[in-house]
Amino acid sequence: MSMNSFGHLFRVTTWGESHGPALGATVDGCPPGVAIDAGKIQHWLDKRKPGQNKYTTQRREADEVKILSGTFEGVTTGTPVQLMIENTDQRSKDYGDIKDKFRPGHADITYFQKYGVRDYRGGGRSSARETAARVAAGGLAREAINAIAPGIDIKGYMTRMGAHEIDRSRFDWDQIDANPFWTPDAQAADEWANYLDGLRKSGSSVGAVIEVVARGVPAGLGAPIYAKLDTDLAAAMMSINAVKGVEIGEGMSAAMLTGELNADEISMGPDGPEYSSNHSGGILGGISTGQDVVVRFAVKPTSSILTTRKTITKSGEDTEIITKGRHDPCVGIRAVPVGEAMMACVLLDHLLLHRGQVGENQGHIG
Amino acid sequence: MSMNSFGHLFRVTTWGESHGPALGATVDGCPPGVAIDAGKIQHWLDKRKPGQNKYTTQRREADEVKILSGTFEGVTTGTPVQLMIENTDQRSKDYGDIKDKFRPGHADITYFQKYGVRDYRGGGRSSARETAARVAAGGLAREAINAIAPGIDIKGYMTRMGAHEIDRSRFDWDQIDANPFWTPDAQAADEWANYLDGLRKSGSSVGAVIEVVARGVPAGLGAPIYAKLDTDLAAAMMSINAVKGVEIGEGMSAAMLTGELNADEISMGPDGPEYSSNHSGGILGGISTGQDVVVRFAVKPTSSILTTRKTITKSGEDTEIITKGRHDPCVGIRAVPVGEAMMACVLLDHLLLHRGQVGENQGHIG
Amino acid sequence: MSMNSFGHLFRVTTWGESHGPALGATVDGCPPGVAIDAGKIQHWLDKRKPGQNKYTTQRREADEVKILSGTFEGVTTGTPVQLMIENTDQRSKDYGDIKDKFRPGHADITYFQKYGVRDYRGGGRSSARETAARVAAGGLAREAINAIAPGIDIKGYMTRMGAHEIDRSRFDWDQIDANPFWTPDAQAADEWANYLDGLRKSGSSVGAVIEVVARGVPAGLGAPIYAKLDTDLAAAMMSINAVKGVEIGEGMSAAMLTGELNADEISMGPDGPEYSSNHSGGILGGISTGQDVVVRFAVKPTSSILTTRKTITKSGEDTEIITKGRHDPCVGIRAVPVGEAMMACVLLDHLLLHRGQVGENQGHIG
Amino acid sequence: MSMNSFGHLFRVTTWGESHGPALGATVDGCPPGVAIDAGKIQHWLDKRKPGQNKYTTQRREADEVKILSGTFEGVTTGTPVQLMIENTDQRSKDYGDIKDKFRPGHADITYFQKYGVRDYRGGGRSSARETAARVAAGGLAREAINAIAPGIDIKGYMTRMGAHEIDRSRFDWDQIDANPFWTPDAQAADEWANYLDGLRKSGSSVGAVIEVVARGVPAGLGAPIYAKLDTDLAAAMMSINAVKGVEIGEGMSAAMLTGELNADEISMGPDGPEYSSNHSGGILGGISTGQDVVVRFAVKPTSSILTTRKTITKSGEDTEIITKGRHDPCVGIRAVPVGEAMMACVLLDHLLLHRGQVGENQGHIG
Repeated sequence: MSMNSFGHLFRVTTWGESHGPALGATVDGCPPGVAIDAGKIQHWLDKRKPGQNKYTTQRREADEVKILSGTFEGVTTGTPVQLMIENTDQRSKDYGDIKDKFRPGHADITYFQKYGVRDYRGGGRSSARETAARVAAGGLAREAINAIAPGIDIKGYMTRMGAHEIDRSRFDWDQIDANPFWTPDAQAADEWANYLDGLRKSGSSVGAVIEVVARGVPAGLGAPIYAKLDTDLAAAMMSINAVKGVEIGEGMSAAMLTGELNADEISMGPDGPEYSSNHSGGILGGISTGQDVVVRFAVKPTSSILTTRKTITKSGEDTEIITKGRHDPCVGIRAVPVGEAMMACVLLDHLLLHRGQVGENQGHIG
Repeated sequence: MSMNSFGHLFRVTTWGESHGPALGATVDGCPPGVAIDAGKIQHWLDKRKPGQNKYTTQRREADEVKILSGTFEGVTTGTPVQLMIENTDQRSKDYGDIKDKFRPGHADITYFQKYGVRDYRGGGRSSARETAARVAAGGLAREAINAIAPGIDIKGYMTRMGAHEIDRSRFDWDQIDANPFWTPDAQAADEWANYLDGLRKSGSSVGAVIEVVARGVPAGLGAPIYAKLDTDLAAAMMSINAVKGVEIGEGMSAAMLTGELNADEISMGPDGPEYSSNHSGGILGGISTGQDVVVRFAVKPTSSILTTRKTITKSGEDTEIITKGRHDPCVGIRAVPVGEAMMACVLLDHLLLHRGQVGENQGHIG
Repeated sequence: MSMNSFGHLFRVTTWGESHGPALGATVDGCPPGVAIDAGKIQHWLDKRKPGQNKYTTQRREADEVKILSGTFEGVTTGTPVQLMIENTDQRSKDYGDIKDKFRPGHADITYFQKYGVRDYRGGGRSSARETAARVAAGGLAREAINAIAPGIDIKGYMTRMGAHEIDRSRFDWDQIDANPFWTPDAQAADEWANYLDGLRKSGSSVGAVIEVVARGVPAGLGAPIYAKLDTDLAAAMMSINAVKGVEIGEGMSAAMLTGELNADEISMGPDGPEYSSNHSGGILGGISTGQDVVVRFAVKPTSSILTTRKTITKSGEDTEIITKGRHDPCVGIRAVPVGEAMMACVLLDHLLLHRGQVGENQGHIG
Repeated sequence: MSMNSFGHLFRVTTWGESHGPALGATVDGCPPGVAIDAGKIQHWLDKRKPGQNKYTTQRREADEVKILSGTFEGVTTGTPVQLMIENTDQRSKDYGDIKDKFRPGHADITYFQKYGVRDYRGGGRSSARETAARVAAGGLAREAINAIAPGIDIKGYMTRMGAHEIDRSRFDWDQIDANPFWTPDAQAADEWANYLDGLRKSGSSVGAVIEVVARGVPAGLGAPIYAKLDTDLAAAMMSINAVKGVEIGEGMSAAMLTGELNADEISMGPDGPEYSSNHSGGILGGISTGQDVVVRFAVKPTSSILTTRKTITKSGEDTEIITKGRHDPCVGIRAVPVGEAMMACVLLDHLLLHRGQVGENQGHIG
């Protein structure tokens, strides 16, 4: 409660439940003068939309965004932008079975324990459907970034599905949009297709790792000590449903390195400092270096599976549960555009923060 | 920067540089009536203090904390508590060599690029010395937790040093305080001692993984969607110097599991729900389950090593650097009490938030 | 921008423009378990609604509120409550005359100077129409107050219209709802009716003073030093369109008193401390005393009048303007329910804050 | 309480009690590169310092400020600036009489009721001594304003003492610093000297009105809807001890005017829009117009007087009290530099906010 917002100057508040009338994002702090319309935002929502292939949930949602405020004659005015998405697929018949049971590995039980309310309609506020609002806000953030700091490119992709990791030697930016898993490794995409098809048929699910890279980020973004760029990215990604780990650059593996191996050596290039490597993920001391900003997060497998699991009822009786319905065998797939959206929001926020707090006072090297 | 604070209701602002007159924490939002004195806080600072054995930096700092406000007759009054630590070891001779060079892998360069100021005195604000203020605040948070929610126990320990991980089958809570690495695996402690001694003598450094566990945390803490308990823990840990990855429960490995393996099954116990496992790390949907809360983070090796590295000067000339001085071969060791302090602050904050936002309205199972 | 929210734990973000598709309030932090439906909120919106008598603007707006999220089965769930009001009366023909001219005494010019966008549609975001969203949020706040701290009664009324002040000796709570000016002085109501009718016919306007009283507020609310109860009330009232002054208790007149006259003497009553008078307006040191909380604010006359005034165009040319259209001769009338709503939001916020920060730790006298 | 901070990007947290070891301001968000030293801040503290003439409390405090962090080689670094003032005059003998009694009109009773702690040492946190920290922060804010937006001049002065108001026809800026009351009316200063001398001898006290004007403020500052410039100024002034009313421009008197009288007509001047009058106090729609920003506040008479007043004890018994000791007959005098400091902090904050949120996107007229 009162914690449904993120961002400092570009501040996004999401609202709405999985099966309520609508959900959306109240976006406060978008700079004025940014050219925007619903179509530009819809583009990113369509990328996240369920039911586009057999690997994602078959729930049918148009996910059509409406801009209710904050723009005039095609540009933002500097006032709050309300982005609303109406829910169209609200089948109530689905819930009978889980109305009184808690799904293991799901937020059903903790929401009830916290708030004393059992909103059994498809997860209510804890549903991944909330991420549609993030993607809408992220679409607006991208346009604002283009307007005030052109040249930043944000791209997310899947690097692992279950036990299967991509081969970095086959990394190809152009492949990312060419397969249903948004992976840069075409061969992995083929293998994953078969693997996931089997999982889907058996009613199982699997986890994934998503990497999001921002290229063209200027040096100097990030506000130490408690709004470091990596701190804000970690919070942003960990707040996404089902995420259990976040890494910057070398990530958890940094623990295995020596100082010699981990140091990114510096030399002077024509346009400023250049680095021999990017173990840091483009962030030192919480501030961007000018290199690619690299963040990675792990998405756990969805808990909605067809295998019987032990659980309890609302009244405290032991029972069992099978979660039928329309679910994602690899929910990580649809987390790709969500991760991109969070990156866009965080970067725009820090562009504005830096401009406000530091202005043109930056140090120049060389 | 106005971003030197963390927490919602228990709000800590740290201030001070590595080699300025003093540093400290302005702690706002501590509940009234908590019995506190400088000694109780000093206990935790002593745990973090440098120079206690050959494995940590030989810089000599008393790290003596003074309480300048917020208490009267031995208890907190509900007003801000100022915790100040004066710097005593401010040797200026150390800086000559690095005054104009940037250390690879260090925040020297990004702070200069951001702020246009080169504070070369031992890292200035970006120094790990800032974490002393966190540990002081954490000491106060522990006492406040004991006062309002007794029974919560917070413990941090090292699970990996470089390539060497502990053997979980030898995990012993009682060993943690019995070795200089705060590791629960006595055999690992012996092996690491030799390994680190070698690294120290060769002027190298190595990374580490720290795990922090909170036992006795009640179900219901955490504020979805953007102040989830795991979100706030991820931000708290990622904000610590040199941290590059954060995991909750199963962490990055969750990506490798199927839904069947990852689900923690639920049954009804005498005191409420019980779980067959804790892949979730005690957090579902951003809210505590009542299980142990488990967070893990990776600390990169310090960039201050005796091997020559390529770098540039402030004026943009290519050069080389060797970082002499008094440094930690495994800075992760001293991150253990820092991680504990951050856990304490986050938990207290969420105890207060929950009390304010939800009150006694929680759902009861059984 | 990013400043369209108020409140600490009960946090209201308003959005929407005068003539956009819709406006509303995203209310975050409402406690769970509060019984609510659209009808309870509509009650307060109807009080503020324009066009109800000849003394307010003849713009026709249904001001029908819809609850889009945050409730389930008739109670709040602890998640954000989206309150949306669609705009139905969007006559575009009205704007031709003022499209390029700035109205003296109106925010037209400063919004343009700040944001570089001229949203000429009835004031855009700066329109008093934004206060409908506040009234909706206030309706929810009232229900939440009743649920967690029953016995608090909030009432606003007009004490001055232009040169005409009420006679406090005729103060009658029951009169407030019996006249179109919400004044407790029936005789004043009669006199004001004639006075305002004359103003309306001549196309003029006049200012007003509104007083809002909260009875039954417990001692102890307010968070010194910078979220004192009076500080938050001052900000809340000053943020209302056209407000130029805010007073607590004795208000500006406190400057004229001696310490002897201003001190509210204390004696012990059956239920706690009692006061001989209430110069303090129920607040000492920013914390409620248990007496009536009394706040007063002055609303300037609307700048939309039929008399020709000098002004300039967007391109900087001197010109003249007459503001035709449907306007309020005394906009202060409709500020009464807005002031009440702000009082309700601030009190609920401080009830939650106090519960979170202090809990049951209050001092007991006697 | 976590509510001891104000400001959005220039964020000041004050800490410390009247009779603790020290008090101060943790100032976060000061831009880097501002030339500052303790002397520049001391200048303003000396203006507020008690005991400078017979009209203010005879408590002796050096009020010497120390800068503990955030500067290097004479300029700010962009990191938190800690401004500490040690308390030197901590006579404990004063408190015996009021240890168990509550002073009427004082925060003694509400702090006890809220926090359950009776800090009887000279008011503890509720003492006006807290305002020394504000003045220190304000001194830093002034230098930062000069650095990033030169040409803004902030000046406060007294316009009323009790029943005695200044004559605006005698207003003389140069007189303000020439008398102990900081009043621009030399004749009033003479009259007030006699009047206050009488009050002081009789152990009484009286209220005052302070006006603070900022000249040279550019158009466009202020962040609607809930961080309007007037909203933030109202909160800032109302948070000062003993303030009971705040006015912008015409203030409460705006209620008495018609639309014709209140409208400030606009014409085009050589440097932009010019206004025929300044009823608005330089703020329209919460945004600065470029005219003088004018705020006024009423300070109530101090409750510490030599006349016997009825009160109760901590245990709830009726009793009487006389407040002996060293007090201000007109505490409003020392509120002048405090009001100036708050104006400086608010303006700097909005300069930074505007830069961050809007950048160079402002509209240009003519």
